[in-house]
Amino acid sequence: MVGGGSDAFIGAIHRLAANMDGQIELVCGCFSSDPGISVSSGVSYYLPESRVYRSYQEMFEKESALAPGERMDFVTIVTPNHVHFEPAMMALERGFHVVIDKPVTFTLEEAITLRSKVRETGLVLALTHTYSGYPAVKEARERVRRGDLGEIRRIYVEYPQGWLSARVEEKGNAQASWRTDPKRSGKAGCMGDIGTHAFHLAEYISGLKATELCAELNTFVPGRLLDDDGAALLRFNNGARGVLMATQVAAGEENAVKIRIYGDKGGMEWAQMEPNTLWMKWTDKPVEMIRTGQGYMGPTAKHNTRTPAGHPEGYLEAFANIYRNFSLTVRARLNGKTPQNEWLDFPTIDDGVRGMLFIETVVQAGYDDTVKWVKFAG
Amino acid sequence: MVGGGSDAFIGAIHRLAANMDGQIELVCGCFSSDPGISVSSGVSYYLPESRVYRSYQEMFEKESALAPGERMDFVTIVTPNHVHFEPAMMALERGFHVVIDKPVTFTLEEAITLRSKVRETGLVLALTHTYSGYPAVKEARERVRRGDLGEIRRIYVEYPQGWLSARVEEKGNAQASWRTDPKRSGKAGCMGDIGTHAFHLAEYISGLKATELCAELNTFVPGRLLDDDGAALLRFNNGARGVLMATQVAAGEENAVKIRIYGDKGGMEWAQMEPNTLWMKWTDKPVEMIRTGQGYMGPTAKHNTRTPAGHPEGYLEAFANIYRNFSLTVRARLNGKTPQNEWLDFPTIDDGVRGMLFIETVVQAGYDDTVKWVKFAG
Amino acid sequence: MVGGGSDAFIGAIHRLAANMDGQIELVCGCFSSDPGISVSSGVSYYLPESRVYRSYQEMFEKESALAPGERMDFVTIVTPNHVHFEPAMMALERGFHVVIDKPVTFTLEEAITLRSKVRETGLVLALTHTYSGYPAVKEARERVRRGDLGEIRRIYVEYPQGWLSARVEEKGNAQASWRTDPKRSGKAGCMGDIGTHAFHLAEYISGLKATELCAELNTFVPGRLLDDDGAALLRFNNGARGVLMATQVAAGEENAVKIRIYGDKGGMEWAQMEPNTLWMKWTDKPVEMIRTGQGYMGPTAKHNTRTPAGHPEGYLEAFANIYRNFSLTVRARLNGKTPQNEWLDFPTIDDGVRGMLFIETVVQAGYDDTVKWVKFAG
Amino acid sequence: MVGGGSDAFIGAIHRLAANMDGQIELVCGCFSSDPGISVSSGVSYYLPESRVYRSYQEMFEKESALAPGERMDFVTIVTPNHVHFEPAMMALERGFHVVIDKPVTFTLEEAITLRSKVRETGLVLALTHTYSGYPAVKEARERVRRGDLGEIRRIYVEYPQGWLSARVEEKGNAQASWRTDPKRSGKAGCMGDIGTHAFHLAEYISGLKATELCAELNTFVPGRLLDDDGAALLRFNNGARGVLMATQVAAGEENAVKIRIYGDKGGMEWAQMEPNTLWMKWTDKPVEMIRTGQGYMGPTAKHNTRTPAGHPEGYLEAFANIYRNFSLTVRARLNGKTPQNEWLDFPTIDDGVRGMLFIETVVQAGYDDTVKWVKFAG
Repeated sequence: MVGGGSDAFIGAIHRLAANMDGQIELVCGCFSSDPGISVSSGVSYYLPESRVYRSYQEMFEKESALAPGERMDFVTIVTPNHVHFEPAMMALERGFHVVIDKPVTFTLEEAITLRSKVRETGLVLALTHTYSGYPAVKEARERVRRGDLGEIRRIYVEYPQGWLSARVEEKGNAQASWRTDPKRSGKAGCMGDIGTHAFHLAEYISGLKATELCAELNTFVPGRLLDDDGAALLRFNNGARGVLMATQVAAGEENAVKIRIYGDKGGMEWAQMEPNTLWMKWTDKPVEMIRTGQGYMGPTAKHNTRTPAGHPEGYLEAFANIYRNFSLTVRARLNGKTPQNEWLDFPTIDDGVRGMLFIETVVQAGYDDTVKWVKFAG
Repeated sequence: MVGGGSDAFIGAIHRLAANMDGQIELVCGCFSSDPGISVSSGVSYYLPESRVYRSYQEMFEKESALAPGERMDFVTIVTPNHVHFEPAMMALERGFHVVIDKPVTFTLEEAITLRSKVRETGLVLALTHTYSGYPAVKEARERVRRGDLGEIRRIYVEYPQGWLSARVEEKGNAQASWRTDPKRSGKAGCMGDIGTHAFHLAEYISGLKATELCAELNTFVPGRLLDDDGAALLRFNNGARGVLMATQVAAGEENAVKIRIYGDKGGMEWAQMEPNTLWMKWTDKPVEMIRTGQGYMGPTAKHNTRTPAGHPEGYLEAFANIYRNFSLTVRARLNGKTPQNEWLDFPTIDDGVRGMLFIETVVQAGYDDTVKWVKFAG
Repeated sequence: MVGGGSDAFIGAIHRLAANMDGQIELVCGCFSSDPGISVSSGVSYYLPESRVYRSYQEMFEKESALAPGERMDFVTIVTPNHVHFEPAMMALERGFHVVIDKPVTFTLEEAITLRSKVRETGLVLALTHTYSGYPAVKEARERVRRGDLGEIRRIYVEYPQGWLSARVEEKGNAQASWRTDPKRSGKAGCMGDIGTHAFHLAEYISGLKATELCAELNTFVPGRLLDDDGAALLRFNNGARGVLMATQVAAGEENAVKIRIYGDKGGMEWAQMEPNTLWMKWTDKPVEMIRTGQGYMGPTAKHNTRTPAGHPEGYLEAFANIYRNFSLTVRARLNGKTPQNEWLDFPTIDDGVRGMLFIETVVQAGYDDTVKWVKFAG
Repeated sequence: MVGGGSDAFIGAIHRLAANMDGQIELVCGCFSSDPGISVSSGVSYYLPESRVYRSYQEMFEKESALAPGERMDFVTIVTPNHVHFEPAMMALERGFHVVIDKPVTFTLEEAITLRSKVRETGLVLALTHTYSGYPAVKEARERVRRGDLGEIRRIYVEYPQGWLSARVEEKGNAQASWRTDPKRSGKAGCMGDIGTHAFHLAEYISGLKATELCAELNTFVPGRLLDDDGAALLRFNNGARGVLMATQVAAGEENAVKIRIYGDKGGMEWAQMEPNTLWMKWTDKPVEMIRTGQGYMGPTAKHNTRTPAGHPEGYLEAFANIYRNFSLTVRARLNGKTPQNEWLDFPTIDDGVRGMLFIETVVQAGYDDTVKWVKFAG
């Protein structure tokens, strides 16, 4: 693991998710750019000091010198965005599979380079777009794919949060600090941090690709250096239209990811804060409440479910689904076997490039009052 | 009443709403452009045949010839949009107060002319934007006004319906037929029919005025002549930003008007399909569920509530609030008294002009890929 | 109308409900046992003073002396429980149909006597158990009747309120005052006021009859003279089992009537505070959300619905359904016609007797720790 | 681990919950009474064959012969109820701490004997009443304890499930098979399996003890040998009254544990299927939505929360809270330290005895029509 020291947030989430299924063991790490924190963190995670490294360069070097059965099988990169590319490249070059947090890199160019490296090495890279890890989201995709909604016309995806309503980055909030800093976060603030999740969710469920967008980005909190809010109109490759709304200044909102998709035959709705329910809507018959854990769920949803209906699964289980599918895939590769299709269902470098393209495009469109539609370059 | 024969929809709603409080009595009408339907309708409403007219021209003429205590006090106009302006002008010219359905006229020009006539005559005109008639919406406005949310930053207003997902206007659906016909509906379809409601709600609660918008309008159902879907980014006069979404092809949606407003201190949410609840959201304390009929509600909400908390009020009561406030105001005028402030809280010709301006602007922006922002002319 | 002066609550509700459909006109009344209040109330309801009476005895006498087309067609009795029986008997004896609030009388004996009088006169008596007036409740009954749930096993019906959590009857709350007074309310407080509603709802939807019950009644507020809380286990005539919970000391609850019924094939759930939704639950397929106003609703629900789906109907519309069906039935009788089956769907004296039997039985069981099950005498 | 082979349900849940926090490692087990299944299961859990045992007797014997640092620290018992007591006693006698599924034993007598053994050995025993592991439930208890609701008057606790609506125990459902078999489940079916959870939740949150109950137990599915449904009226030691409803034949229900508690100052409501929300209700101010992960939560809830607000935690996290608190406590003991108060917050043998007492009492009352109230013997 690179990053995720005792002072970090998302690293702990990664460890919880990776632990859950008993398939993955933390064996080494460089948990902080501060060597002291790295060591104390590693010890608190029950690692031997010999496997707690003072830099990720050291980690890759020493781990790759270990025997195949002893060295780590893959690395998880949970650092701020500006420290994604280099360790990821280094990992791939040393032959390690990679789990990496989103957005995949600091710039679109890095993402494209990384994609080449992944293709070149044939290694596995998983990107933690958690929300597509939920069973009900996977069920939604299956139902779109098999045509339940008919031709897709309309997508609304939204991601309101409120935690950046005030300038908390000035008050010691470490999470806010790097996310609002262009040097560590990248071109976009809100759109990079959560807009990419919303964008990924829309493309993942619908199976469509956005081709152009019209947007406005805003910075509501005085003094903040990146967008903390924005909205975009989207056009998809089949002619469908979308609205994407992301904000971190919706005071009082927690983490209200929600998506609605409508086709000519029906509609669907899913909200992350009640993640085990998928609503299917019809013009001529009752709305149906599709529930995780029920026998009528499709095989992909079932593969990604651990508990019976009514025993709610949550964010960590969705996160763990990425890790589990990734580890099943890596293990198959290590054993020279072909992974099952269901195991391959986790976000990859391709999704990472799409996300960076989204950031690029939405930033270009978001501040320019003279150009309405900006095409996706990819 | 002009329109609202036994074959119409909204006329029946108007009568239910007008009846409810025992303050208004239907005394005459021309209920259809088909004289036979007009007469049979009037008789079924228990009117004497002498007060059922074969044309609205006849109605205004004969009614104004009656003695003041006998003739109607006001007229309700519930015809399709292209038959709004003429009877409304005629009514005002004859000295009758007016209740009229939205959008107020067929064109912006008509609305402006009508506004002049209202101002000139000093008569009362109420526009039935039903959704601002709900007590919880009035409470929301009061709370914004007194600063509970702080400075408003972000407004999301949406109005998804699904009933026009197929081309029902070709299958004998009378409601669909005129609403999708540019000759009877006007420049806009979905945006005129329901977009105006959403727009009114946003301006009503927030107390802000939109100054420019960026939009895309769509027609998803092949062969349809007007927009059945659209979305707009809005800029408000205080710098707040909005998203307005309206669609009639969200298959499976009923009438899901919803608004969310966020300021620097808190947020609020109201959804028409659970109309007695207003959610207040805060960054540092629990979300509050504000409920119609509770003792802590403000005086305007209370004035517009008929039942105790937990005895749900609905669409007809919201509609009746417009009628009641209108009739209280008219009665005060008839008695030479000054209406109370709370009675004056119903949509007027000014809201009607705003709605027509919205239609004008959103249609101009909605089909032009070369201009991003279009200013409101008004 | 007997009762319902300007100082009363439920009388205003009755007038709103009766007005709504334009089928009923208030023509006379004795609105209070205080003649001054009766007169001032009547005048404020736009009645001529000649039709505002100082006692109900006077009203029945003078009205029955008027010509058939002029005198009232029926009377509404909205007084406290101890003044139900006498005016109801008087009305029937003078040939007037009756709408009466629940519980139908002060004692079971009165109810039985009143039932004899109704049968003897052949007049129509409607009892305002409002909750069975909701379209979704009527749909629920139809679905049970046609066997959707299979054989009914389990009924949970509950009615929590919180407004009597403190001793508000001592603080000038007129509604609380008579409801907690054994001389005006009868043997039961909470169980008479709201328990009877819950009981009626259970029998109405299920089509079953309770045959015995086991109960405990409680008075939580010190000094109160009647039960303010209670729960009962019920046995039904087909072997189904029920739990009925009613309380007026559930602090913070509004008017949360809710019923759940389970058979061997499926279950259903309806909650009054979101009255337009009926949930149908199945063991092997998704829960369905059945909605008032949808095309798939049955004819009885449709007959009792005024607005399209998504335009919420509420408590007053449910109340108005009783008045509308009653008035359709009375009008048919007056015209010598046979009422349609759907019109006859309102609570009658038989429901009134069932309610009084429930009160009798639950009070007998509710304070006796030595007898577990008490049979319904009827 | 005793039980929890690849053919079992709850064992997998235990492993997921134990893994999550990286504090517990599965080191050995006897996973089935069938040695072949035990071995194949153990291997699939990545255990060396030497630590996979063919009987629990063998396991305790061989493990206790290992060196302190090598042998297991505690044992988890996840067998059907009739195989709880013996391995638990054996574990305690050999000096192993115990995690055990509920109900704690097959009979009340066994539970009492086990309690003596726990007291005698001073070892730690945790009982997996999962629902009290949720952060919002812990917050609820804290709020009751500090008096937010005032004096408790009324408790409603319910646990409807539908999975036993048909006789699935005859169709190869292993979970149903032992739960409906008096030889493996004990005196009670539904009441033992889920009624005990509801009972525990009521006592845990309220801090009260039930003193007597009045109940009816039912078996709705023909041929079934134990209760599949029941309801009880409860009396608590402070005079509060309760209703407990548990059923496994509520067709279409998943796992709808819900509790409502009302005092003279306010009420609260929590439902397991939306576990991160606790509703606080007040007579004179808005209902509050208390949410897991928010800064205003108390220290106990925070200690048991892993993710920020809006990132839903679920059943496995609640389960893991029992394991984490248990392991913190055991580790403190192993290190000779005093566990923090918050760590001690997991169900113990005392809760186990209460549960068995509940079963004993509810079964005694549930089939006897001649005795109304039965006192708790304990």
